[in-house]
Amino acid sequence: MDASSPDKTDLTALDQYWQAANYLSVGQIYLLDNPLLREPLQPEHIKPRLLGHWGTTPGLNFIYAHLNRVIRARDLDMIYICGPGHGGPGMVANTYLEGTYSEIYPDITRDKDGLRKLFRQFSFPGGIPSHAAPETPGSIHEGGELGYSLLHAYGAAFDNPNLIVACVIGDGEAETGPLAASWHSNKFLNPAHDGAVLPILHLNGYKIANPTILARMRDEEISLLLKGYGFDPLFVEGRDPSDMHQKMARALDEVLDRIGDTQTRARNNPSAGRPRWPMIVLRTPKGWTGPKEVDGKKVEGFWRAHQVPIEGVRTDHAHLEILEKWMRSYRPEALFDDAGCLRTDLQALAPTGLRRMGANPHANGGTLKRKLTLPDYRSYAVDLRSPGSQFGEATRIMGGYLRDVIWLNAANKTFRLMGPDETASNRLDAVFEATDRVWLEEIEPFDVGLAPDGRVMEVLSEHLCQGWLEGYLLTGRHGLFNCYEAFVHIVDSMFNQHAKWLAVSRRLPWRRPIASLNYLLSSHVWRQDHNGFTHQVPGFVDLVANKDSDIVRIYFPPDANTLLCVADHCLRTYDRINVIVAGKQSSPQWLSMQEAEAHCKDGIGIWQWATTEGTDEPDLVMACAGDIPTLETLAAVSLLREALPDLKIRVVNVIDLMTLQPREQHPHGLSDKEFDRLFTRDRPVIFAYHGYPYMIHRPTYNRANHENIHARGYREKGTTTTPFEMVVMNELDRFHLAIEAVERVPGLKAKATAIRQLYEGKLTEHHRYIREHGEDMPEILNWRWPRSFGRDE
Amino acid sequence: MDASSPDKTDLTALDQYWQAANYLSVGQIYLLDNPLLREPLQPEHIKPRLLGHWGTTPGLNFIYAHLNRVIRARDLDMIYICGPGHGGPGMVANTYLEGTYSEIYPDITRDKDGLRKLFRQFSFPGGIPSHAAPETPGSIHEGGELGYSLLHAYGAAFDNPNLIVACVIGDGEAETGPLAASWHSNKFLNPAHDGAVLPILHLNGYKIANPTILARMRDEEISLLLKGYGFDPLFVEGRDPSDMHQKMARALDEVLDRIGDTQTRARNNPSAGRPRWPMIVLRTPKGWTGPKEVDGKKVEGFWRAHQVPIEGVRTDHAHLEILEKWMRSYRPEALFDDAGCLRTDLQALAPTGLRRMGANPHANGGTLKRKLTLPDYRSYAVDLRSPGSQFGEATRIMGGYLRDVIWLNAANKTFRLMGPDETASNRLDAVFEATDRVWLEEIEPFDVGLAPDGRVMEVLSEHLCQGWLEGYLLTGRHGLFNCYEAFVHIVDSMFNQHAKWLAVSRRLPWRRPIASLNYLLSSHVWRQDHNGFTHQVPGFVDLVANKDSDIVRIYFPPDANTLLCVADHCLRTYDRINVIVAGKQSSPQWLSMQEAEAHCKDGIGIWQWATTEGTDEPDLVMACAGDIPTLETLAAVSLLREALPDLKIRVVNVIDLMTLQPREQHPHGLSDKEFDRLFTRDRPVIFAYHGYPYMIHRPTYNRANHENIHARGYREKGTTTTPFEMVVMNELDRFHLAIEAVERVPGLKAKATAIRQLYEGKLTEHHRYIREHGEDMPEILNWRWPRSFGRDE
Repeated sequence: MDASSPDKTDLTALDQYWQAANYLSVGQIYLLDNPLLREPLQPEHIKPRLLGHWGTTPGLNFIYAHLNRVIRARDLDMIYICGPGHGGPGMVANTYLEGTYSEIYPDITRDKDGLRKLFRQFSFPGGIPSHAAPETPGSIHEGGELGYSLLHAYGAAFDNPNLIVACVIGDGEAETGPLAASWHSNKFLNPAHDGAVLPILHLNGYKIANPTILARMRDEEISLLLKGYGFDPLFVEGRDPSDMHQKMARALDEVLDRIGDTQTRARNNPSAGRPRWPMIVLRTPKGWTGPKEVDGKKVEGFWRAHQVPIEGVRTDHAHLEILEKWMRSYRPEALFDDAGCLRTDLQALAPTGLRRMGANPHANGGTLKRKLTLPDYRSYAVDLRSPGSQFGEATRIMGGYLRDVIWLNAANKTFRLMGPDETASNRLDAVFEATDRVWLEEIEPFDVGLAPDGRVMEVLSEHLCQGWLEGYLLTGRHGLFNCYEAFVHIVDSMFNQHAKWLAVSRRLPWRRPIASLNYLLSSHVWRQDHNGFTHQVPGFVDLVANKDSDIVRIYFPPDANTLLCVADHCLRTYDRINVIVAGKQSSPQWLSMQEAEAHCKDGIGIWQWATTEGTDEPDLVMACAGDIPTLETLAAVSLLREALPDLKIRVVNVIDLMTLQPREQHPHGLSDKEFDRLFTRDRPVIFAYHGYPYMIHRPTYNRANHENIHARGYREKGTTTTPFEMVVMNELDRFHLAIEAVERVPGLKAKATAIRQLYEGKLTEHHRYIREHGEDMPEILNWRWPRSFGRDE
Repeated sequence: MDASSPDKTDLTALDQYWQAANYLSVGQIYLLDNPLLREPLQPEHIKPRLLGHWGTTPGLNFIYAHLNRVIRARDLDMIYICGPGHGGPGMVANTYLEGTYSEIYPDITRDKDGLRKLFRQFSFPGGIPSHAAPETPGSIHEGGELGYSLLHAYGAAFDNPNLIVACVIGDGEAETGPLAASWHSNKFLNPAHDGAVLPILHLNGYKIANPTILARMRDEEISLLLKGYGFDPLFVEGRDPSDMHQKMARALDEVLDRIGDTQTRARNNPSAGRPRWPMIVLRTPKGWTGPKEVDGKKVEGFWRAHQVPIEGVRTDHAHLEILEKWMRSYRPEALFDDAGCLRTDLQALAPTGLRRMGANPHANGGTLKRKLTLPDYRSYAVDLRSPGSQFGEATRIMGGYLRDVIWLNAANKTFRLMGPDETASNRLDAVFEATDRVWLEEIEPFDVGLAPDGRVMEVLSEHLCQGWLEGYLLTGRHGLFNCYEAFVHIVDSMFNQHAKWLAVSRRLPWRRPIASLNYLLSSHVWRQDHNGFTHQVPGFVDLVANKDSDIVRIYFPPDANTLLCVADHCLRTYDRINVIVAGKQSSPQWLSMQEAEAHCKDGIGIWQWATTEGTDEPDLVMACAGDIPTLETLAAVSLLREALPDLKIRVVNVIDLMTLQPREQHPHGLSDKEFDRLFTRDRPVIFAYHGYPYMIHRPTYNRANHENIHARGYREKGTTTTPFEMVVMNELDRFHLAIEAVERVPGLKAKATAIRQLYEGKLTEHHRYIREHGEDMPEILNWRWPRSFGRDE
């Protein structure tokens, strides 16, 4: 393509632009004042604490400048994912040079005073973080934790046919598991209706204190690896800037031509199959253009360039001299005009308006977000005459709802469902009536539900599911991640990072809200019939509860109708992380849709139809959260109602776990008055909880009645056994609950021993039965909420 | 090699052996009785609940039988890592056939009755789990969570020069991040003194409900990928058993020849560099030899074979017939003698004694474990005259101790230190005086501390560090994993799985204890000067505390001498997971070694020298856990002692977090009496804690004084700022602590307002100062424990 082929003149200016970015990057790390070096550098111009990462930055700046060139030449819609996000000074420098920084932060003007502030604020109290954080224009990826850049890039590219996502992957990051797997994302990108990802693997050779695996591999071996991953790598290698500019420009032109050809081919012939996508391997010295040596030790091209390459600059005059010489090597006087503004001809090298990568709306996805069209969740309701009178598989019913969510938003292409090969296992398979699984590899005639344009993404990697979804949400779309409860812990750390992103971005007025990250955790701890102990881990919500209360929500809908309400609610929220834990097995249904709606609205409430309290205070509160604990609690209540008809039992069910928190700590938290109204101030509370029982004590330890709250849950006991034996092993079953209830109610001491004996006898009998027959006793399997107890009319 | 080249006769018997294993696998999934099908199959012979995974099992059995052949032919020391661990029936079948199962579980005899029990117990209440669990002989890898097989394999091979670890990797597992990265483990395996890993990538084509990425790639592309990873793959593909036996035997002979050659070459010439290791790609149908179709739907060679391929066998006569036909296709009558024992000539195909993979001692590492030689940790002590009179970097001092641990165990090769490129950053760099980092790729003249035989393993992947260490420990060696505190969450789920492994294995008498998994978490939440918010996550210990109290320990040594004591203790323990959280920055040192030893022994205690309580009950308890909270607490105490000389303050420091738990819940837990003695029954307790404050409330919610325990910790507030500003943001600083103290002591109401104003003034002043100067105020930076307060003589 002639129009974009660079000539020497172009690249001289581009080189100066790059030098300006490098200069600004060094300035941010070092300078308090004298930003243009118009006077000799003095110790008082230097920050007292030198913080930040230089090593990766010149490479990031080099790429940014070159991407600017091709965006202008080809009018590209492009964003920049900065895998080595700790190279924040580079991202800030570039968005400042292109003007977006000053538009968003008008205080940071494009003049000497603005430059001084720009430098000063970096990693400075009251200033900006050192990474490509939410505060950084154009960023959807902080890169604080390494491994997810390519996933975010693909997530951004899905359903964005005109977008090109340039993704810089550091060779440190490339050693992580998630990154190593995410190269395979190309098997899920449809060139016909998705955008393109341009991976730029940046081999600068070193991590904090070690060489990197990939950089020490020879090109031949790297090339085999990347070709094996389905890419066609172009190598751009060297250290001489003018030579490197020529190579990089040529390489970018070539890969963009090929991306264009690939897309054209696929859009003309949608069955063209999976293409081999081009990518760039950029090999440059770490800390390129920085000091070669400091105190006789190699710095440029070595790991000593990783953070601050010259320390002690305030006190060591020789170091100050090295710094000054280094900074002056960029010739700031030739780059900035008298006022301290980038030379106009250099400014012209940046794209304009929304084409600037710092201003591209895809990197502020909330601005592009369209509302989901949602079906009426009521129309999927289980039509229930009385509590427990019907059975249903909650997630299967939700599958019908999700099918129609997909169907209604299919034209807009704004919703995707992610799952690590568990969508059918989690019984959401109704979705396959509306769509298929994305599959770009070959499809056999006997395959079921695979297509290049499916809206369900399945891959056996929770990391990939989470990372893609994050990228998809951050660029303004919607989605849900369904996962086995135990293995969502695989993405604990990704959850942490996304929660941190939201905590910051929601405080930035220029960042528009994005759709919430919704988890549906099924195949949960209590029903791991095929798998046993390794699959029994209900602790993800413990982690979630540590995060900002503005952001996190945890729901335990006990049946299908409540699950429908909760799911519908979550899909309407933004800037949150919603965790829904729900069962997939056939279980009794408790609430009509009308009751479910009221219950979900409150998040917690008394189930009047199950209680026997009349108008007095109850003798006892039986509380529950989660489908299995609810079932066991109600079974225990039915035992107690038969054994002790005069006992006044209240049943409280908790859907929204955050209601248990003090109101001051969570917006959904109950006031003490409301809490006391439900749980009383002095009656025993037997609380059957889905997960680790501490999760009930921790939000309630300050409530008036907390001493009487006795939580039961998963005690880390399990194996491959029957469903009822699982609850027995953890003493969460109806008999243990009933025994504790009787023992906790002061007036029942006399009867307690007989009742304990009775129920322990039942447990022994059950134990014997299952070892003989291999399945639960009929009286357990067939237990139903007694019709005679009916419903409060 | 002529001796091992198979002839047709050999492989006919081997085929029968394989059929026997397949028969036993199906029997485990289906049969309650009639184990040899000596009568027609009846519904009552079938288990009421059909659980387990068939799909992967015939492939696992195929590999096992072939490995048996080469072990015998070459007298190999080999273990089998079963990546698809849910194929447990296969592992059980094979260890039964070779005789190890009956030796370990004498009840499961090698006859008809034993067979019946073997079948019945599988996934049956009171029986065995469905996976390759700790209960399974020869297993060090349950495979419940996918992704870690190859890491365990490499961990087992390190420093075991004569061991060959055969590692079956399922094509589902191969999609995970950790597995995708762990191929690069070959860059850390030294053929001169490590053993060999033989990866067998098993492409059976499908996961639960989807094809796999790798299986749908063409051989050419897989070959590029694996060569790029540094392997030389041999492909064994097909479905005709006799043909496949020939191919597999030839391939195994070839890879073993090449492994032998590689090792010989490296052992004769240690600088031979990184070899290209051979491996096998085995492509067989999922559910191979199982039913081709059920109800007109494709089963063999498709994902429907994943779990139980024929359902409803008890009630559907046609299904019962398919099952019977399938099982009889293996011709049990030709495989087992009249008593129900495997034919003697087939028995002879298995290796004998400890060469049997089910009996190999490496798979029961505790039997091989040698005690670490540990230096006297006292000799690294900070020699302290009075509390706070000296500064030190705790982890740097521990580095000296670790250096000598490495040095003392260098000849035995029984200790490795793992870290994600953070060993120097965590200031353990003294270890490089004793050893290097393992590095098999090229080494440049300017590199520092790299060698093919280093004992420090650094790679930018927490998954790899954790997985290698697990494999190393499980095969009887020792180690420590040092990690940034925030990013240890990356391995949350691996931690869960290892804790579950230990919880089960420690209950099995035949499994000998293995060395504990030790974490040193440094670069913690309070000192992320270069990185900010993303690097501030102290929640790993929350997860840890959910696990079995027999297994987990959490330590917060507040200075160098306590860290030395704790580290030395942890390295002497077994079957545990120890988490040590310690600072790396220069901080005041509090305890002499003698005091430190006493304090660590108790795990919690009153710091008499800091208290002002005299002989009465104190007015107030100031408690702390963690280095920064301890510093801020003591600074707050010094403020209070100056402002209110009559206030009786007790200072309690907690090293061992488990002491806070009730004694019934944790062996380190304090009795209520002991707890009350330290924390009083009614005085306010201001508890400054390192992490999320709930971690203090959850173990103490039932203590007499819990209502007066006011915990402060990390409130999820942070950015790149000064160290003191970080504690201020979270209100964990000396001023907030002192203000709360004054406000909580009933007698001080009158003085509270003035004191609040005074300290809030200090905070405002500090705030102004840091925004001006960029570093903490001198009075904060230079704060020292007042010498005049001295020590209680």
